[in-house]
Amino acid sequence: MHLTKNDLQTTERVKRLNIINSISGIKPANLIGTASDDGKTNLAIFSSVIHLGSNPALLGFILRPADEVPRHTYENIQANGFYTINHVPTAMIENAHYTSAKFDHEISEFERCGFHEEYIDGFSAPFVKESPLKIGMRFIESIPININNTTLVIGEVEHLIVLDEAMTEKGYINLEICQTAGISGLNSYYNVQKIMDFPYARPHEVPDFKQKA
Amino acid sequence: MHLTKNDLQTTERVKRLNIINSISGIKPANLIGTASDDGKTNLAIFSSVIHLGSNPALLGFILRPADEVPRHTYENIQANGFYTINHVPTAMIENAHYTSAKFDHEISEFERCGFHEEYIDGFSAPFVKESPLKIGMRFIESIPININNTTLVIGEVEHLIVLDEAMTEKGYINLEICQTAGISGLNSYYNVQKIMDFPYARPHEVPDFKQKA
Repeated sequence: MHLTKNDLQTTERVKRLNIINSISGIKPANLIGTASDDGKTNLAIFSSVIHLGSNPALLGFILRPADEVPRHTYENIQANGFYTINHVPTAMIENAHYTSAKFDHEISEFERCGFHEEYIDGFSAPFVKESPLKIGMRFIESIPININNTTLVIGEVEHLIVLDEAMTEKGYINLEICQTAGISGLNSYYNVQKIMDFPYARPHEVPDFKQKA
Repeated sequence: MHLTKNDLQTTERVKRLNIINSISGIKPANLIGTASDDGKTNLAIFSSVIHLGSNPALLGFILRPADEVPRHTYENIQANGFYTINHVPTAMIENAHYTSAKFDHEISEFERCGFHEEYIDGFSAPFVKESPLKIGMRFIESIPININNTTLVIGEVEHLIVLDEAMTEKGYINLEICQTAGISGLNSYYNVQKIMDFPYARPHEVPDFKQKA
């Protein structure tokens, strides 16, 4: 199937949303946990968390335009300065998916969707107890993406909590052992299975690949 | 295991790279195809392709600092204006991984790593014939991320070519049928298996989740 830009522009809106949200490939399923000034907690699923750098350890995520969605997560991050990123375990993908419903500010998605809050001394944002890999983040900056009014929200890793058995001596984290979920599009959830590790690629060590005819 | 920011800063460099490159969760495995002004093609694996918006259809990816890595991909995008993003099929993860070796400009990773170039009339960048989902992109803009000298490179979808059997009537793309690979960290490759679709989440339709004690 070959769709041009014009084909995509004339595709019905929801179908286009489904298609374009799928084409980047598998996306990570993460829950972002925050707390408001008045002590209400919030939990929301994001598929746009991205690695930005290792030293300092920086992660980003993409925020939709303010006129499209309520932004409790972002308001809380701005007010509080801290937030958590928690891998979604495959056993709780349904719970995680429904955090995307537009609940009132008064309702905590932790309680409504069946997750437990967990805290670290001196860190003001709630972690997800059920998550196999949890990251405590400090907000750094927001970079506007003017072409479509989205925002790249950048934070630094302050805490990393991960299952002991998932990390090797070299620092490889096995996402199959974590049972971390993946997402395609807006609604489809995946399990991941490790195939193989390869070494750092040096030009003189590249195998002799042949193009198949 | 609980690692603080200070623990991470004092971790040996390569181990820290491995850890921090893994914590965002599963990442998509994509090959970016480009051509230089003098007609040399280039192919490079990226795990940072991200959905930015559906109308217009925009994707981004993160470019490392210029002093860390050669940037044939970026130089070609700047010169040519067009590039391709191609899902890595699980059957070719080893080939795809080795495109990350620092080959000389004269060597095309297509040929060296066993991929075939494929072209669309009127589109100047090479696609990967073996890929189950191929996207023709037009460069839009680069946004600097000053805190660590990385760059968010943004482009618009001009062409989408996908296996007929992978897309449903609703526009859902099944990545298990595509056999699209995922990546954790810098060196670990994953297979993805579809678990479930859930509907668009409306507050009054959320199931009655109970927190387990």
